[in-house]
Amino acid sequence: MANAPVQRMSQLMAKTLRDDPADAEVLSHKLLVRAGYVRRTAAGIWTWLPLGKKVLANVERIVREEMDAIGAQEVLLPALLPREPYDATGRWDEYGAELFRLQDRKGGDYLLGPTHEEIFTLMVKDQASSYKDLPVILYQIQTKFRDEARPRAGILRGREFLMKDSYSFDLDDDGLAQSYALHREAYRRIFERLGLDYRICAATAGAMGGSKSEEFLAPAEAGEDTFADCPNCDFAANTEAVSYELKPVDAAGVPAAEDIPTPDTPTIETLAAQLGVPASATLKNLLVKVDGEIVAVGVPGDREVDLDKVEAHFAPAQVEMVTEADFIARPDLVRGYVGPQGLDKVTYIADPRVAPGTAWITGANKADTHAKNVVAGRDFEVDAYVDVVVVEEGDPCPRCGTGLKLDRAIEIGHIFQLGRKYADALKLDVLGQNGKPVRVTMGSYGVGVSRAVAALAEQTADDKGLCWPEEVAPADVHVVAAGKALQTELALEVSEKLAAAGVRVLVDDRAGVSPGVKFTDSELIGVPRILVAGRRSADRVLELKDRRTGEREELTVDEAVARLTAR
Amino acid sequence: MANAPVQRMSQLMAKTLRDDPADAEVLSHKLLVRAGYVRRTAAGIWTWLPLGKKVLANVERIVREEMDAIGAQEVLLPALLPREPYDATGRWDEYGAELFRLQDRKGGDYLLGPTHEEIFTLMVKDQASSYKDLPVILYQIQTKFRDEARPRAGILRGREFLMKDSYSFDLDDDGLAQSYALHREAYRRIFERLGLDYRICAATAGAMGGSKSEEFLAPAEAGEDTFADCPNCDFAANTEAVSYELKPVDAAGVPAAEDIPTPDTPTIETLAAQLGVPASATLKNLLVKVDGEIVAVGVPGDREVDLDKVEAHFAPAQVEMVTEADFIARPDLVRGYVGPQGLDKVTYIADPRVAPGTAWITGANKADTHAKNVVAGRDFEVDAYVDVVVVEEGDPCPRCGTGLKLDRAIEIGHIFQLGRKYADALKLDVLGQNGKPVRVTMGSYGVGVSRAVAALAEQTADDKGLCWPEEVAPADVHVVAAGKALQTELALEVSEKLAAAGVRVLVDDRAGVSPGVKFTDSELIGVPRILVAGRRSADRVLELKDRRTGEREELTVDEAVARLTAR
Repeated sequence: MANAPVQRMSQLMAKTLRDDPADAEVLSHKLLVRAGYVRRTAAGIWTWLPLGKKVLANVERIVREEMDAIGAQEVLLPALLPREPYDATGRWDEYGAELFRLQDRKGGDYLLGPTHEEIFTLMVKDQASSYKDLPVILYQIQTKFRDEARPRAGILRGREFLMKDSYSFDLDDDGLAQSYALHREAYRRIFERLGLDYRICAATAGAMGGSKSEEFLAPAEAGEDTFADCPNCDFAANTEAVSYELKPVDAAGVPAAEDIPTPDTPTIETLAAQLGVPASATLKNLLVKVDGEIVAVGVPGDREVDLDKVEAHFAPAQVEMVTEADFIARPDLVRGYVGPQGLDKVTYIADPRVAPGTAWITGANKADTHAKNVVAGRDFEVDAYVDVVVVEEGDPCPRCGTGLKLDRAIEIGHIFQLGRKYADALKLDVLGQNGKPVRVTMGSYGVGVSRAVAALAEQTADDKGLCWPEEVAPADVHVVAAGKALQTELALEVSEKLAAAGVRVLVDDRAGVSPGVKFTDSELIGVPRILVAGRRSADRVLELKDRRTGEREELTVDEAVARLTAR
Repeated sequence: MANAPVQRMSQLMAKTLRDDPADAEVLSHKLLVRAGYVRRTAAGIWTWLPLGKKVLANVERIVREEMDAIGAQEVLLPALLPREPYDATGRWDEYGAELFRLQDRKGGDYLLGPTHEEIFTLMVKDQASSYKDLPVILYQIQTKFRDEARPRAGILRGREFLMKDSYSFDLDDDGLAQSYALHREAYRRIFERLGLDYRICAATAGAMGGSKSEEFLAPAEAGEDTFADCPNCDFAANTEAVSYELKPVDAAGVPAAEDIPTPDTPTIETLAAQLGVPASATLKNLLVKVDGEIVAVGVPGDREVDLDKVEAHFAPAQVEMVTEADFIARPDLVRGYVGPQGLDKVTYIADPRVAPGTAWITGANKADTHAKNVVAGRDFEVDAYVDVVVVEEGDPCPRCGTGLKLDRAIEIGHIFQLGRKYADALKLDVLGQNGKPVRVTMGSYGVGVSRAVAALAEQTADDKGLCWPEEVAPADVHVVAAGKALQTELALEVSEKLAAAGVRVLVDDRAGVSPGVKFTDSELIGVPRILVAGRRSADRVLELKDRRTGEREELTVDEAVARLTAR
């Protein structure tokens, strides 16, 4: 690899700003703009300036090396994609407003790829005909487009972004498990080399369909994901994937259920106050419609129903809230006083906290009346137990029972066993060893390449500015000429020597800029080591500063070059 | 740089085809598909398979290194761009149907960038405030979109393609000339390293507006550009940029102009036949309307008018052909019998071949009548001499007079002095040394990165298949296991040894594929050196073949490794 020339700040397109941009809400957005790494081109659409492009290229390189190391083959697919394959899998419609759609000059329908499952499936259908051609893992580092409703948080959630997406193709479940494991390990290496703090979290399937799935989450204030983290064991999960153990209890001593008059108590709050019981003693029954049929969802009165979880349980059926019209059509459903006992033609699902044997105060299906001592499994049947409550801080860890912590995080990677969903839709078979066609099973795996830059900025910044880990920094050393001609001459001399030895050098040779401004800028820009040609330049002595720790030491030119090239 | 693993063909996503794809018209399209480098995803939209992606990455690397070497700074701009800046320069409309336009979920207008002058101009407007910030050259290697009317020729002319585009920003014309010269030299190095045969051709401005411009053309049958090439001197030009020297002659001996009856001769052919003179003795007068005003264009009767040249001359005015209605409105214009002498209220432009003093047979502005001895400058005035004829093979070289050759070529690069067009539209000024604002002058420069791959395929292929130059080949050596277990074992052993020494290896380890098929595939794929483990594998002797020359020699394993790593 040829040595890159010394990058002089006097010529660099990287204007630093003293103030945070007005529209910036999160740290990485503020700092990446202020330090001259990125600029906004339109809502959620970003330009990478020279320093930003260097960091992005470093992340790309690490991702590429680790994908190559698991035998994945790099390809490059177009961003502009024809509608037909996305019709075949239903995603042309399912994606809704998030998909950028457009027409060509002949009126043909196209989309800007948000992810490429369909096209990879068709590629393998074209290229692979026999079991001998599998397994295969294909990847690309490519620009994706998603029309986010509220693009915010700078490059953390843009509408055009760079992603590594890969896809595995296997003959059977064991093969898929192995391709999945290869990715899991590659991702661990990628995020470790990037210097990211991350957790691997169990995830629900979401809109992709399929089975096993894990997310790589980088804890950060600015994150849009909430995850549950056990302070005792190594459990970590997307809150949608936290389960609660079903623990039946003995209800032998519970008296028979009994109606109690409770006038004007259509809410849990009014009920608990009138009876002088905690909300957790009551059973709340939320009514929804699933493909038009009424379903009641039972949870303790102090908990919220997570509608995403309800939707995920019934998918692909559509879940809606009940309306005024539904209560009119079903006079047996008394609004505010619904109870699961004696409900007719209503499917009843409940949170595992409503375990067999637990006793509840709940609606009596009569106005102004509740019932007490209503026991699950005795007075009513639960059709299915489903984890439907919003997880709260302190909920028990499903693995060890310790109270969970809830933290915010940035999703930086996602690995996913798709199974045969896409292969079924697009009829991807290969000829098996026995001469019969085998339907292929697939995985899909993503790393947010541009998002990883923002996640790194979030995690590593301090109150002075950005502070990059070595492998991704835009330079190895930031040389500062803190003074006039003498200092500039020395700074350039040492820069050239370092560059000749393969060190990537950014040198602040700007004339008419004070040492103070240069120091502030060097800390804002965040190159790991800062080498200052200052007061002792006449003695050919420089000061080497560690950007993170602030440790300093004085070195001669030769010592500095030796130190910085000894790696 | 980490050593890439040995690429085994048994696992490689690169199915070779025996037959040309049905829709392929040009050599590179046929071969790149047959050898498993690319696949069509939609009309003019391509997927790069692993071998293709490797070649593309090699071209990218060379372009990047040479751009870095002239001090250009790499950035990355979005493909999805807001409408406003393109409205400001008028290109939102000017681009016509070639621009992909779309709306986001809020109804905002966006486009897919066909080229990024506007956004780079705005970037520099944001980043540069003083003369000290210039000059600067910025570049990106990025995906471009153009909705070609007839996408054809495979990746030579796609609707989504990879391009290096760069932009220079200077304070004055001398600076622009220098940035232009830097690019010209960088492009020479790029195309030389790529191993492309190319010519630098003078070009007209085209739709970009501006002044000096040159094209880098790679001669190839499949090319869509025609250029004129002098077999004697180093003149080469886009045919639109070939000029003809104006050579006035002495008309002293020419008799006075005289009408001659020429019944039924409304065309040059009928006229020349009736009079028994060559078509070149007659003067053809084409009528057009320029912004609604009649203009006559005079050329020798044996030459065609190049309407593109007429349009370029009058741009931005609109040029249209005259209609029936125009002849009715102007009875003095006698269709088929128009002559420049005595024309009223008609601007007359002529090709330099109609030089002052030349005498012609031309229309007499009366039905069935022509005039002879009509002398330019004596009997009629030429308002402007403009090169308007279609250049033909054998036309004199403007530099040395030798008859020009006409060749077809692929445009692989274009360098362009834009001047202040975009800076004017978007008001890009910096503060000058005297404290007054200076309007910036720009250049724009492009290399077709994906197109260069096709151009290379066109120029280097032979009747056996692709044949890549070293720097861009998908591997350094293609090892072929021509036999059973013994040969495969030896092939893999030598492959690992080569890879460990940093050689990029593709090894054909496919089981159940005959040596003949493997040889054919290796020639189709076109890696420069082919190393065969064949009959003498038991003696640990391999055959090294040069893909281009076909030269072969037998080498031991150690000799082969030594030979292939000695570079």
